[in-house]
Amino acid sequence: MNISHIEHIGIAVNNLEESIKYYEDVLGMKCYSIEEVEDQKVKTAFFLVGNTKIELLESTSPDGPIGKFIEKKGQGIHHIAFAVENATKALQTAEERGVRLIDKVSRKGAEGLNIGFLHPKSTHGVLTELCSKE
Amino acid sequence: MNISHIEHIGIAVNNLEESIKYYEDVLGMKCYSIEEVEDQKVKTAFFLVGNTKIELLESTSPDGPIGKFIEKKGQGIHHIAFAVENATKALQTAEERGVRLIDKVSRKGAEGLNIGFLHPKSTHGVLTELCSKE
Repeated sequence: MNISHIEHIGIAVNNLEESIKYYEDVLGMKCYSIEEVEDQKVKTAFFLVGNTKIELLESTSPDGPIGKFIEKKGQGIHHIAFAVENATKALQTAEERGVRLIDKVSRKGAEGLNIGFLHPKSTHGVLTELCSKE
Repeated sequence: MNISHIEHIGIAVNNLEESIKYYEDVLGMKCYSIEEVEDQKVKTAFFLVGNTKIELLESTSPDGPIGKFIEKKGQGIHHIAFAVENATKALQTAEERGVRLIDKVSRKGAEGLNIGFLHPKSTHGVLTELCSKE
């Protein structure tokens, strides 16, 4: 598996602009990128804290994953993403170790990373992403 | 404020032993410490991932904060903790910037750190901890 670090923490928010203002004006972070990921029906904003990113996620559609999450649970921490060498291989390893997968192979996510999710039923309630540059 | 990095991610779990097994056997991490924090009515297990820790939290009492969280939301990510130079000063700064505080001054948390929490009503749904060695 070889997880090197936490690549990012995904946080679901109602309003990207208002939340960016909080992270910048209160916590003193700097948003370095805003990106829409159409496939996931989200608009994202990124901040770097140490070598981990905060990824704010605003839904662009009520039927997208973040829209559904916020409807059910309200805004808050949505997922944790671990950096691995090769996301597809790490997904396979997780499956071999008994984990139920959301993604059998990696797909393209924000910032051009290859990403895939483990199912929270198999990860003690934590929606877990594995991601890699390759 | 001067946040240097994410000190840890707190994750509420039903059963510490079973969750340690998952983080070790599936994700390949190594638990380096188990500690009970009586004040918070939790037993904690720590893993280091890059320079951020994963802190698993099992409640030792149904009326503790983690017991109540799990009863309401189920197990999952509970809070994010940012490392600052001085937790009490950072709490004051946050309050000056309009944030509602759970802790007006820092108190002792796990690993001997000085910790204090911002209220999730002021932080867009994210229970946010500030912590420092001093």
